[in-house]
Amino acid sequence: MIRPIGERINGMFKDIRIAIKEKNASVVQDYARRQTEAGAKFLDINVGTAAEDQCAVMKWLVEVTQEVVDTALCIDSQKLEVVKAGLEVAKNELLINSSKADPEELDVYMPLAKQYDASLICLTINKDGVPQDIDNRVMIAATILEKALEHEFDIDKIYIDPILLPINCDQAQAVMMTEVYSQIRIMSDPPPHITVGLSNFSQGTKEKSLLNRAILTMSMVAGLDAPVMDVLDKELMDAAITTDVVMNHMIYSDSYLKAGLAMITGK
Amino acid sequence: MIRPIGERINGMFKDIRIAIKEKNASVVQDYARRQTEAGAKFLDINVGTAAEDQCAVMKWLVEVTQEVVDTALCIDSQKLEVVKAGLEVAKNELLINSSKADPEELDVYMPLAKQYDASLICLTINKDGVPQDIDNRVMIAATILEKALEHEFDIDKIYIDPILLPINCDQAQAVMMTEVYSQIRIMSDPPPHITVGLSNFSQGTKEKSLLNRAILTMSMVAGLDAPVMDVLDKELMDAAITTDVVMNHMIYSDSYLKAGLAMITGK
Repeated sequence: MIRPIGERINGMFKDIRIAIKEKNASVVQDYARRQTEAGAKFLDINVGTAAEDQCAVMKWLVEVTQEVVDTALCIDSQKLEVVKAGLEVAKNELLINSSKADPEELDVYMPLAKQYDASLICLTINKDGVPQDIDNRVMIAATILEKALEHEFDIDKIYIDPILLPINCDQAQAVMMTEVYSQIRIMSDPPPHITVGLSNFSQGTKEKSLLNRAILTMSMVAGLDAPVMDVLDKELMDAAITTDVVMNHMIYSDSYLKAGLAMITGK
Repeated sequence: MIRPIGERINGMFKDIRIAIKEKNASVVQDYARRQTEAGAKFLDINVGTAAEDQCAVMKWLVEVTQEVVDTALCIDSQKLEVVKAGLEVAKNELLINSSKADPEELDVYMPLAKQYDASLICLTINKDGVPQDIDNRVMIAATILEKALEHEFDIDKIYIDPILLPINCDQAQAVMMTEVYSQIRIMSDPPPHITVGLSNFSQGTKEKSLLNRAILTMSMVAGLDAPVMDVLDKELMDAAITTDVVMNHMIYSDSYLKAGLAMITGK
Protein backbone atom coordinates (compact mmCIF):
# COMPACT_ATOMS: atom_id res chain seq x y z
CA MET A 1 0.00 0.00 0.00
CA ILE A 2 1.01 3.58 -0.61
CA ARG A 3 2.72 5.45 2.27
CA PRO A 4 1.87 9.08 1.50
CA ILE A 5 4.12 11.78 2.96
CA GLY A 6 1.96 14.87 3.52
CA GLU A 7 3.82 17.88 2.13
CA ARG A 8 1.91 20.74 3.70
CA ILE A 9 3.80 21.63 6.90
CA ASN A 10 6.54 23.41 4.99
CA GLY A 11 7.72 27.00 5.40
CA MET A 12 7.82 27.31 1.61
CA PHE A 13 4.02 27.62 1.77
CA LYS A 14 2.99 31.18 2.64
CA ASP A 15 0.47 30.27 5.36
CA ILE A 16 3.03 28.11 7.18
CA ARG A 17 5.70 30.81 6.79
CA ILE A 18 3.35 33.33 8.44
CA ALA A 19 2.35 30.81 11.14
CA ILE A 20 6.05 30.28 11.95
CA LYS A 21 6.64 34.02 12.14
CA GLU A 22 3.61 34.60 14.38
CA LYS A 23 4.12 31.40 16.44
CA ASN A 24 0.57 30.46 15.48
CA ALA A 25 0.46 26.76 16.43
CA SER A 26 -3.16 26.23 15.39
CA VAL A 27 -2.42 26.69 11.67
CA VAL A 28 0.26 23.98 11.84
CA GLN A 29 -1.90 21.73 14.00
CA ASP A 30 -4.83 22.09 11.64
CA TYR A 31 -2.68 20.79 8.76
CA ALA A 32 -1.36 18.01 11.03
CA ARG A 33 -4.90 16.82 11.79
CA ARG A 34 -6.35 17.27 8.30
CA GLN A 35 -3.44 15.56 6.53
CA THR A 36 -3.59 12.66 8.98
CA GLU A 37 -7.32 12.23 8.40
CA ALA A 38 -6.77 12.43 4.64
CA GLY A 39 -4.34 9.49 4.74
CA ALA A 40 -0.85 10.83 5.42
CA LYS A 41 1.38 8.02 6.73
CA PHE A 42 4.09 10.64 7.44
CA LEU A 43 3.91 14.41 7.92
CA ASP A 44 6.77 16.27 6.29
CA ILE A 45 8.12 19.02 8.57
CA ASN A 46 10.21 21.66 6.80
CA VAL A 47 11.02 25.10 8.21
CA GLY A 48 11.46 26.68 4.76
CA THR A 49 14.21 29.14 4.03
CA ALA A 50 12.88 32.33 5.62
CA ALA A 51 13.08 31.24 9.27
CA GLU A 52 15.84 32.98 11.24
CA ASP A 53 16.73 30.31 13.81
CA GLN A 54 15.95 27.18 11.79
CA CYS A 55 16.81 24.78 14.64
CA ALA A 56 14.40 26.50 17.04
CA VAL A 57 11.67 26.61 14.40
CA MET A 58 12.10 22.90 13.60
CA LYS A 59 11.76 22.06 17.30
CA TRP A 60 8.64 24.20 17.60
CA LEU A 61 7.03 22.64 14.47
CA VAL A 62 7.73 19.11 15.71
CA GLU A 63 6.42 19.89 19.19
CA VAL A 64 3.17 21.56 18.15
CA THR A 65 2.51 18.79 15.61
CA GLN A 66 3.05 16.06 18.22
CA GLU A 67 0.60 17.78 20.53
CA VAL A 68 -2.28 16.87 18.23
CA VAL A 69 -1.30 13.75 16.24
CA ASP A 70 0.84 10.66 16.69
CA THR A 71 1.48 10.40 12.93
CA ALA A 72 5.05 9.58 11.88
CA LEU A 73 7.14 12.68 11.13
CA CYS A 74 9.39 13.29 8.15
CA ILE A 75 12.10 15.65 9.41
CA ASP A 76 12.98 17.62 6.29
CA SER A 77 16.02 19.88 5.98
CA GLN A 78 19.19 20.06 3.94
CA LYS A 79 21.04 21.15 7.09
CA LEU A 80 22.27 18.44 9.44
CA GLU A 81 21.91 20.61 12.56
CA VAL A 82 18.27 21.38 11.73
CA VAL A 83 17.53 17.67 11.25
CA LYS A 84 19.23 16.95 14.59
CA ALA A 85 17.14 19.64 16.31
CA GLY A 86 13.98 17.93 15.06
CA LEU A 87 15.14 14.47 16.10
CA GLU A 88 15.97 15.65 19.62
CA VAL A 89 12.40 16.64 20.46
CA ALA A 90 10.58 14.03 18.38
CA LYS A 91 8.50 11.33 20.07
CA ASN A 92 6.59 10.01 17.05
CA GLU A 93 7.98 7.50 14.54
CA LEU A 94 10.61 9.16 12.32
CA LEU A 95 11.80 9.47 8.74
CA ILE A 96 14.80 11.70 7.98
CA ASN A 97 14.59 13.73 4.74
CA SER A 98 17.32 13.48 3.46
CA SER A 99 20.91 12.39 2.84
CA LYS A 100 22.71 12.71 -0.46
CA ALA A 101 24.46 9.57 -1.74
CA ASP A 102 28.07 10.64 -1.16
CA PRO A 103 29.66 7.91 1.01
CA GLU A 104 30.93 10.39 3.60
CA GLU A 105 27.44 11.91 3.98
CA LEU A 106 25.77 8.48 4.29
CA ASP A 107 28.41 7.66 6.94
CA VAL A 108 26.95 10.51 9.01
CA TYR A 109 23.24 10.08 8.30
CA MET A 110 22.95 6.30 8.59
CA PRO A 111 24.36 6.12 12.15
CA LEU A 112 22.26 9.17 13.09
CA ALA A 113 19.09 7.52 11.79
CA LYS A 114 19.94 4.29 13.60
CA GLN A 115 20.47 6.22 16.84
CA TYR A 116 16.87 7.52 16.64
CA ASP A 117 15.45 4.28 15.14
CA ALA A 118 14.48 6.46 12.17
CA SER A 119 14.00 5.61 8.51
CA LEU A 120 16.10 7.56 5.99
CA ILE A 121 15.43 9.17 2.61
CA CYS A 122 18.52 9.00 0.37
CA LEU A 123 18.64 11.07 -2.81
CA THR A 124 20.35 9.69 -5.92
CA ILE A 125 22.49 12.83 -5.95
CA ASN A 126 26.22 12.89 -5.39
CA LYS A 127 29.04 15.40 -5.88
CA ASP A 128 28.33 15.38 -9.63
CA GLY A 129 24.72 16.53 -9.08
CA VAL A 130 21.52 14.90 -10.38
CA PRO A 131 22.38 12.25 -12.98
CA GLN A 132 20.76 12.90 -16.35
CA ASP A 133 20.20 9.25 -17.26
CA ILE A 134 18.67 6.06 -15.86
CA ASP A 135 21.89 4.06 -15.48
CA ASN A 136 23.59 6.60 -13.24
CA ARG A 137 20.55 6.95 -10.98
CA VAL A 138 20.44 3.17 -10.60
CA MET A 139 24.20 3.03 -9.95
CA ILE A 140 23.91 5.66 -7.21
CA ALA A 141 21.01 3.70 -5.68
CA ALA A 142 23.33 0.67 -5.59
CA THR A 143 25.89 2.73 -3.65
CA ILE A 144 23.18 3.63 -1.13
CA LEU A 145 22.19 0.00 -0.65
CA GLU A 146 25.83 -1.06 -0.25
CA LYS A 147 26.31 1.57 2.44
CA ALA A 148 23.16 0.34 4.18
CA LEU A 149 24.60 -3.19 4.31
CA GLU A 150 27.89 -1.80 5.66
CA HIS A 151 26.04 0.06 8.42
CA GLU A 152 23.67 -2.87 9.04
CA PHE A 153 20.86 -0.50 8.24
CA ASP A 154 17.48 -2.21 7.75
CA ILE A 155 16.71 -1.92 4.00
CA ASP A 156 13.00 -1.64 4.80
CA LYS A 157 13.87 1.69 6.45
CA ILE A 158 15.65 3.06 3.36
CA TYR A 159 13.61 5.37 1.09
CA ILE A 160 15.39 6.12 -2.19
CA ASP A 161 14.47 9.34 -4.01
CA PRO A 162 15.64 9.11 -7.66
CA ILE A 163 14.68 12.78 -8.31
CA LEU A 164 11.63 13.29 -10.52
CA LEU A 165 12.06 16.49 -12.54
CA PRO A 166 9.15 18.78 -13.52
CA ILE A 167 7.38 17.81 -16.75
CA ASN A 168 7.94 21.28 -18.20
CA CYS A 169 11.65 20.94 -17.52
CA ASP A 170 12.30 17.42 -18.88
CA GLN A 171 9.26 15.76 -20.43
CA ALA A 172 11.07 12.63 -21.66
CA GLN A 173 12.23 11.51 -18.22
CA ALA A 174 8.83 10.71 -16.68
CA VAL A 175 8.44 7.33 -18.34
CA MET A 176 12.19 6.63 -18.04
CA MET A 177 11.86 7.14 -14.28
CA THR A 178 9.44 4.20 -14.02
CA GLU A 179 12.32 2.07 -15.33
CA VAL A 180 14.54 3.49 -12.54
CA TYR A 181 11.96 2.54 -9.87
CA SER A 182 11.65 -1.02 -11.26
CA GLN A 183 15.39 -1.53 -11.36
CA ILE A 184 15.92 -0.20 -7.83
CA ARG A 185 13.13 -2.38 -6.46
CA ILE A 186 14.73 -5.59 -7.76
CA MET A 187 18.16 -4.72 -6.31
CA SER A 188 17.35 -6.06 -2.88
CA ASP A 189 14.92 -8.35 -1.08
CA PRO A 190 13.18 -6.82 0.79
CA PRO A 191 13.32 -3.87 -1.60
CA PRO A 192 13.91 -0.29 -0.42
CA HIS A 193 10.97 2.09 -0.54
CA ILE A 194 10.83 4.60 -3.38
CA THR A 195 9.92 8.25 -2.80
CA VAL A 196 9.73 11.32 -5.04
CA GLY A 197 8.45 14.88 -4.67
CA LEU A 198 5.25 14.34 -6.63
CA SER A 199 4.07 17.97 -6.67
CA ASN A 200 7.43 18.94 -8.11
CA PHE A 201 6.45 17.08 -11.29
CA SER A 202 3.54 19.43 -12.06
CA GLN A 203 5.15 22.58 -10.69
CA GLY A 204 4.29 25.62 -12.80
CA THR A 205 1.66 23.77 -14.87
CA LYS A 206 -2.05 24.45 -15.19
CA GLU A 207 -3.34 20.88 -14.72
CA LYS A 208 -1.54 19.95 -11.50
CA SER A 209 -4.02 17.41 -10.18
CA LEU A 210 -4.46 15.59 -13.51
CA LEU A 211 -0.70 15.39 -14.08
CA ASN A 212 -0.06 14.26 -10.50
CA ARG A 213 -2.68 11.52 -10.77
CA ALA A 214 -1.28 10.16 -14.04
CA ILE A 215 2.36 10.15 -12.91
CA LEU A 216 1.38 8.67 -9.52
CA THR A 217 -0.55 5.74 -11.04
CA MET A 218 2.11 4.88 -13.60
CA SER A 219 4.89 5.26 -11.01
CA MET A 220 3.15 3.10 -8.40
CA VAL A 221 2.94 0.23 -10.88
CA ALA A 222 6.74 0.48 -11.26
CA GLY A 223 7.39 0.56 -7.51
CA LEU A 224 6.95 4.10 -6.17
CA ASP A 225 5.30 3.71 -2.77
CA ALA A 226 6.11 6.76 -0.62
CA PRO A 227 5.54 10.00 -2.55
CA VAL A 228 5.77 13.39 -0.88
CA MET A 229 2.39 14.67 -2.04
CA ASP A 230 -0.67 16.82 -1.51
CA VAL A 231 -2.76 14.36 0.52
CA LEU A 232 -5.48 17.03 0.84
CA ASP A 233 -6.16 16.62 -2.92
CA LYS A 234 -8.94 14.04 -2.52
CA GLU A 235 -8.91 13.11 -6.21
CA LEU A 236 -5.20 12.33 -5.91
CA MET A 237 -5.63 10.21 -2.77
CA ASP A 238 -8.57 8.38 -4.39
CA ALA A 239 -6.39 7.69 -7.44
CA ALA A 240 -3.62 6.34 -5.17
CA ILE A 241 -5.92 3.95 -3.30
CA THR A 242 -7.60 2.91 -6.56
CA THR A 243 -4.20 2.12 -8.06
CA ASP A 244 -3.43 0.01 -4.99
CA VAL A 245 -6.66 -1.97 -5.35
CA VAL A 246 -6.09 -2.47 -9.09
CA MET A 247 -2.56 -3.70 -8.23
CA ASN A 248 -4.19 -6.23 -5.89
CA HIS A 249 -2.52 -4.76 -2.77
CA MET A 250 -5.87 -5.00 -0.98
CA ILE A 251 -9.03 -6.96 -1.61
CA TYR A 252 -11.60 -5.22 -3.81
CA SER A 253 -14.92 -4.31 -2.21
CA ASP A 254 -17.43 -1.59 -2.97
CA SER A 255 -16.04 0.35 0.00
CA TYR A 256 -12.38 -0.07 -0.96
CA LEU A 257 -11.65 3.69 -0.72
CA LYS A 258 -12.58 3.72 2.97
CA ALA A 259 -10.86 0.40 3.63
CA GLY A 260 -7.71 1.57 1.86
CA LEU A 261 -7.53 4.74 3.93
CA ALA A 262 -7.78 2.67 7.12
CA MET A 263 -5.03 0.33 5.89
CA ILE A 264 -2.71 3.28 5.15
CA THR A 265 -3.17 5.07 8.46
CA GLY A 266 -3.66 1.93 10.55
CA LYS A 267 -6.71 3.58 12.16
CA MET B 1 -1.61 8.80 -28.91
CA ILE B 2 -4.68 6.99 -27.67
CA ARG B 3 -7.27 5.89 -30.26
CA PRO B 4 -10.48 5.75 -28.20
CA ILE B 5 -13.33 3.56 -29.47
CA GLY B 6 -16.60 5.16 -28.31
CA GLU B 7 -18.77 2.43 -26.80
CA ARG B 8 -22.14 4.13 -26.68
CA ILE B 9 -23.93 3.13 -29.93
CA ASN B 10 -24.71 -0.34 -28.64
CA GLY B 11 -28.11 -2.00 -28.35
CA MET B 12 -27.09 -3.29 -24.91
CA PHE B 13 -27.75 0.26 -23.64
CA LYS B 14 -31.46 0.79 -23.01
CA ASP B 15 -31.76 4.12 -24.83
CA ILE B 16 -30.16 2.69 -27.98
CA ARG B 17 -32.33 -0.43 -27.73
CA ILE B 18 -35.43 1.77 -27.65
CA ALA B 19 -34.09 3.99 -30.45
CA ILE B 20 -33.58 0.87 -32.61
CA LYS B 21 -37.09 -0.36 -31.87
CA GLU B 22 -38.66 3.05 -32.66
CA LYS B 23 -36.32 3.78 -35.59
CA ASN B 24 -35.42 7.02 -33.84
CA ALA B 25 -32.29 8.11 -35.74
CA SER B 26 -31.73 11.28 -33.74
CA VAL B 27 -30.81 9.40 -30.53
CA VAL B 28 -28.12 7.47 -32.41
CA GLN B 29 -26.94 10.55 -34.27
CA ASP B 30 -26.70 12.53 -31.05
CA TYR B 31 -24.32 9.92 -29.61
CA ALA B 32 -22.39 9.88 -32.90
CA ARG B 33 -21.83 13.64 -32.73
CA ARG B 34 -21.17 13.88 -28.99
CA GLN B 35 -18.71 10.97 -28.91
CA THR B 36 -16.87 12.38 -31.92
CA GLU B 37 -16.57 15.79 -30.25
CA ALA B 38 -15.41 14.13 -27.02
CA GLY B 39 -12.49 12.45 -28.83
CA ALA B 40 -13.68 9.12 -30.24
CA LYS B 41 -11.33 7.96 -33.01
CA PHE B 42 -13.81 5.15 -33.79
CA LEU B 43 -17.51 4.73 -33.03
CA ASP B 44 -18.45 1.20 -32.01
CA ILE B 45 -21.70 0.09 -33.69
CA ASN B 46 -23.39 -2.90 -32.05
CA VAL B 47 -27.03 -3.92 -32.54
CA GLY B 48 -27.29 -5.64 -29.18
CA THR B 49 -29.11 -8.91 -28.73
CA ALA B 50 -32.74 -7.82 -28.73
CA ALA B 51 -32.97 -6.70 -32.37
CA GLU B 52 -35.03 -9.01 -34.57
CA ASP B 53 -33.34 -8.58 -37.93
CA GLN B 54 -29.78 -7.84 -36.80
CA CYS B 55 -28.47 -7.34 -40.36
CA ALA B 56 -31.08 -4.71 -41.16
CA VAL B 57 -30.51 -2.96 -37.82
CA MET B 58 -26.73 -2.89 -38.36
CA LYS B 59 -27.25 -1.31 -41.79
CA TRP B 60 -29.61 1.28 -40.35
CA LEU B 61 -27.22 2.18 -37.48
CA VAL B 62 -24.29 2.56 -39.89
CA GLU B 63 -26.33 4.65 -42.30
CA VAL B 64 -27.79 7.07 -39.77
CA THR B 65 -24.38 7.46 -38.10
CA GLN B 66 -22.68 8.25 -41.43
CA GLU B 67 -25.31 10.90 -42.14
CA VAL B 68 -23.90 13.09 -39.36
CA VAL B 69 -20.20 12.17 -38.84
CA ASP B 70 -17.29 10.92 -40.91
CA THR B 71 -15.70 9.25 -37.86
CA ALA B 72 -14.28 5.76 -38.39
CA LEU B 73 -16.74 2.98 -37.53
CA CYS B 74 -16.09 -0.13 -35.46
CA ILE B 75 -18.51 -2.75 -36.81
CA ASP B 76 -19.20 -4.87 -33.74
CA SER B 77 -20.95 -8.23 -33.83
CA GLN B 78 -20.16 -11.83 -33.04
CA LYS B 79 -22.11 -12.84 -36.17
CA LEU B 80 -20.29 -12.77 -39.49
CA GLU B 81 -23.42 -11.93 -41.49
CA VAL B 82 -24.16 -8.92 -39.27
CA VAL B 83 -20.58 -7.66 -39.70
CA LYS B 84 -20.93 -8.12 -43.47
CA ALA B 85 -24.21 -6.19 -43.50
CA GLY B 86 -22.43 -3.27 -41.80
CA LEU B 87 -19.46 -3.38 -44.16
CA GLU B 88 -21.73 -3.36 -47.23
CA VAL B 89 -23.23 0.04 -46.45
CA ALA B 90 -20.20 1.65 -44.74
CA LYS B 91 -18.44 4.61 -46.37
CA ASN B 92 -16.34 5.77 -43.40
CA GLU B 93 -12.99 4.21 -42.40
CA LEU B 94 -13.57 0.77 -40.83
CA LEU B 95 -12.52 -1.47 -37.96
CA ILE B 96 -14.10 -4.94 -37.64
CA ASN B 97 -14.89 -6.08 -34.08
CA SER B 98 -14.01 -8.97 -33.95
CA SER B 99 -12.48 -12.30 -34.96
CA LYS B 100 -11.47 -15.04 -32.55
CA ALA B 101 -7.96 -16.43 -32.93
CA ASP B 102 -8.85 -19.83 -34.36
CA PRO B 103 -6.93 -20.15 -37.66
CA GLU B 104 -10.03 -21.05 -39.67
CA GLU B 105 -11.87 -17.98 -38.35
CA LEU B 106 -8.91 -15.66 -39.07
CA ASP B 107 -8.84 -17.18 -42.58
CA VAL B 108 -12.34 -15.77 -43.07
CA TYR B 109 -12.01 -12.41 -41.30
CA MET B 110 -8.60 -11.32 -42.58
CA PRO B 111 -9.53 -11.56 -46.28
CA LEU B 112 -12.89 -9.91 -45.50
CA ALA B 113 -11.15 -7.00 -43.74
CA LYS B 114 -8.69 -6.65 -46.62
CA GLN B 115 -11.57 -6.58 -49.10
CA TYR B 116 -13.01 -3.52 -47.30
CA ASP B 117 -9.61 -1.99 -46.44
CA ALA B 118 -10.70 -2.39 -42.82
CA SER B 119 -8.66 -2.86 -39.65
CA LEU B 120 -9.44 -5.95 -37.54
CA ILE B 121 -9.83 -6.61 -33.81
CA CYS B 122 -8.64 -10.14 -32.94
CA LEU B 123 -9.49 -11.61 -29.53
CA THR B 124 -6.97 -13.85 -27.77
CA ILE B 125 -9.72 -16.47 -27.54
CA ASN B 126 -9.66 -19.79 -29.30
CA LYS B 127 -11.59 -23.08 -29.08
CA ASP B 128 -10.32 -23.51 -25.51
CA GLY B 129 -11.90 -20.19 -24.42
CA VAL B 130 -10.18 -17.27 -22.63
CA PRO B 131 -6.75 -18.34 -21.38
CA GLN B 132 -6.32 -17.93 -17.64
CA ASP B 133 -2.65 -16.97 -17.74
CA ILE B 134 -0.27 -14.53 -19.41
CA ASP B 135 1.73 -17.03 -21.44
CA ASN B 136 -1.27 -18.45 -23.26
CA ARG B 137 -2.62 -15.01 -24.12
CA VAL B 138 0.76 -14.07 -25.56
CA MET B 139 0.98 -17.36 -27.47
CA ILE B 140 -2.44 -16.79 -29.04
CA ALA B 141 -1.38 -13.25 -29.98
CA ALA B 142 1.60 -14.79 -31.77
CA THR B 143 -0.78 -17.01 -33.76
CA ILE B 144 -2.73 -13.91 -34.80
CA LEU B 145 0.42 -12.15 -35.99
CA GLU B 146 1.59 -15.23 -37.91
CA LYS B 147 -1.77 -15.39 -39.67
CA ALA B 148 -1.48 -11.69 -40.51
CA LEU B 149 1.89 -12.33 -42.17
CA GLU B 150 0.41 -15.27 -44.09
CA HIS B 151 -2.45 -13.07 -45.34
CA GLU B 152 -0.10 -10.12 -45.96
CA PHE B 153 -2.29 -8.18 -43.57
CA ASP B 154 -0.78 -4.83 -42.50
CA ILE B 155 0.17 -5.28 -38.81
CA ASP B 156 -0.68 -1.63 -38.18
CA LYS B 157 -4.30 -2.58 -38.94
CA ILE B 158 -4.36 -5.43 -36.39
CA TYR B 159 -5.91 -4.64 -32.99
CA ILE B 160 -5.33 -7.42 -30.45
CA ASP B 161 -7.79 -7.72 -27.55
CA PRO B 162 -6.22 -9.85 -24.77
CA ILE B 163 -9.51 -9.86 -22.76
CA LEU B 164 -9.47 -7.76 -19.60
CA LEU B 165 -11.73 -9.37 -16.99
CA PRO B 166 -13.77 -7.37 -14.43
CA ILE B 167 -11.88 -6.50 -11.24
CA ASN B 168 -14.57 -8.09 -9.11
CA CYS B 169 -14.19 -11.31 -11.07
CA ASP B 170 -10.36 -11.65 -11.15
CA GLN B 171 -8.52 -8.95 -9.22
CA ALA B 172 -5.03 -10.40 -9.69
CA GLN B 173 -5.06 -10.26 -13.50
CA ALA B 174 -5.14 -6.47 -13.93
CA VAL B 175 -1.42 -5.94 -13.33
CA MET B 176 -0.58 -9.22 -15.08
CA MET B 177 -2.38 -7.90 -18.15
CA THR B 178 0.06 -5.00 -18.44
CA GLU B 179 2.75 -7.67 -18.90
CA VAL B 180 0.65 -9.18 -21.72
CA TYR B 181 0.39 -5.80 -23.49
CA SER B 182 4.16 -5.23 -23.22
CA GLN B 183 4.99 -8.66 -24.57
CA ILE B 184 2.58 -8.37 -27.49
CA ARG B 185 3.91 -4.93 -28.40
CA ILE B 186 7.48 -6.19 -28.76
CA MET B 187 6.49 -9.15 -30.96
CA SER B 188 6.46 -7.12 -34.14
CA ASP B 189 7.79 -3.88 -35.59
CA PRO B 190 5.57 -1.99 -36.20
CA PRO B 191 3.64 -3.40 -33.22
CA PRO B 192 -0.05 -4.28 -33.42
CA HIS B 193 -2.49 -2.03 -31.58
CA ILE B 194 -3.88 -3.22 -28.26
CA THR B 195 -7.56 -2.89 -27.40
CA VAL B 196 -9.67 -3.96 -24.42
CA GLY B 197 -13.23 -3.34 -23.25
CA LEU B 198 -12.32 -0.82 -20.57
CA SER B 199 -15.79 -0.44 -19.03
CA ASN B 200 -15.91 -4.20 -18.63
CA PHE B 201 -13.15 -3.86 -16.02
CA SER B 202 -15.32 -1.83 -13.63
CA GLN B 203 -18.62 -3.52 -14.45
CA GLY B 204 -20.80 -3.93 -11.37
CA THR B 205 -18.57 -1.73 -9.18
CA LYS B 206 -19.39 1.52 -7.42
CA GLU B 207 -16.31 3.55 -8.44
CA LYS B 208 -16.41 2.99 -12.20
CA SER B 209 -14.70 6.20 -13.28
CA LEU B 210 -11.87 5.96 -10.72
CA LEU B 211 -11.19 2.32 -11.58
CA ASN B 212 -11.34 3.00 -15.32
CA ARG B 213 -8.88 5.90 -14.99
CA ALA B 214 -6.36 3.87 -12.96
CA ILE B 215 -6.45 0.81 -15.23
CA LEU B 216 -6.32 3.03 -18.34
CA THR B 217 -3.22 4.94 -17.20
CA MET B 218 -1.30 1.86 -16.09
CA SER B 219 -2.34 -0.05 -19.24
CA MET B 220 -1.37 2.77 -21.61
CA VAL B 221 2.16 2.78 -20.20
CA ALA B 222 2.37 -0.93 -21.09
CA GLY B 223 1.06 -0.43 -24.63
CA LEU B 224 -2.76 -0.31 -24.60
CA ASP B 225 -3.70 2.31 -27.19
CA ALA B 226 -7.23 1.61 -28.45
CA PRO B 227 -9.64 0.95 -25.58
CA VAL B 228 -13.37 0.57 -26.13
CA MET B 229 -14.45 3.15 -23.57
CA ASP B 230 -16.89 5.77 -22.34
CA VAL B 231 -15.47 8.78 -24.16
CA LEU B 232 -18.29 10.90 -22.70
CA ASP B 233 -16.66 10.51 -19.25
CA LYS B 234 -14.61 13.72 -19.43
CA GLU B 235 -12.46 12.78 -16.42
CA LEU B 236 -11.52 9.55 -18.20
CA MET B 237 -10.67 11.29 -21.48
CA ASP B 238 -8.65 13.91 -19.56
CA ALA B 239 -6.76 11.10 -17.81
CA ALA B 240 -6.05 9.44 -21.17
CA ILE B 241 -4.66 12.60 -22.78
CA THR B 242 -2.70 13.41 -19.61
CA THR B 243 -1.16 9.94 -19.68
CA ASP B 244 -0.18 10.53 -23.31
CA VAL B 245 1.53 13.83 -22.46
CA VAL B 246 3.35 12.28 -19.48
CA MET B 247 4.48 9.48 -21.82
CA ASN B 248 5.91 12.18 -24.10
CA HIS B 249 3.60 11.27 -27.00
CA MET B 250 2.92 14.97 -27.52
CA ILE B 251 4.72 18.12 -26.46
CA TYR B 252 3.64 19.52 -23.09
CA SER B 253 1.96 22.93 -23.11
CA ASP B 254 -0.54 24.53 -20.75
CA SER B 255 -3.27 23.75 -23.30
CA TYR B 256 -2.24 20.11 -23.84
CA LEU B 257 -5.77 18.79 -23.19
CA LYS B 258 -7.16 20.74 -26.13
CA ALA B 259 -4.13 19.98 -28.31
CA GLY B 260 -4.36 16.27 -27.48
CA LEU B 261 -8.03 16.11 -28.42
CA ALA B 262 -7.22 17.70 -31.78
CA MET B 263 -4.40 15.19 -32.32
CA ILE B 264 -6.69 12.23 -31.60
CA THR B 265 -9.55 13.31 -33.84
CA GLY B 266 -7.37 15.01 -36.48
CA LYS B 267 -9.74 17.99 -36.36
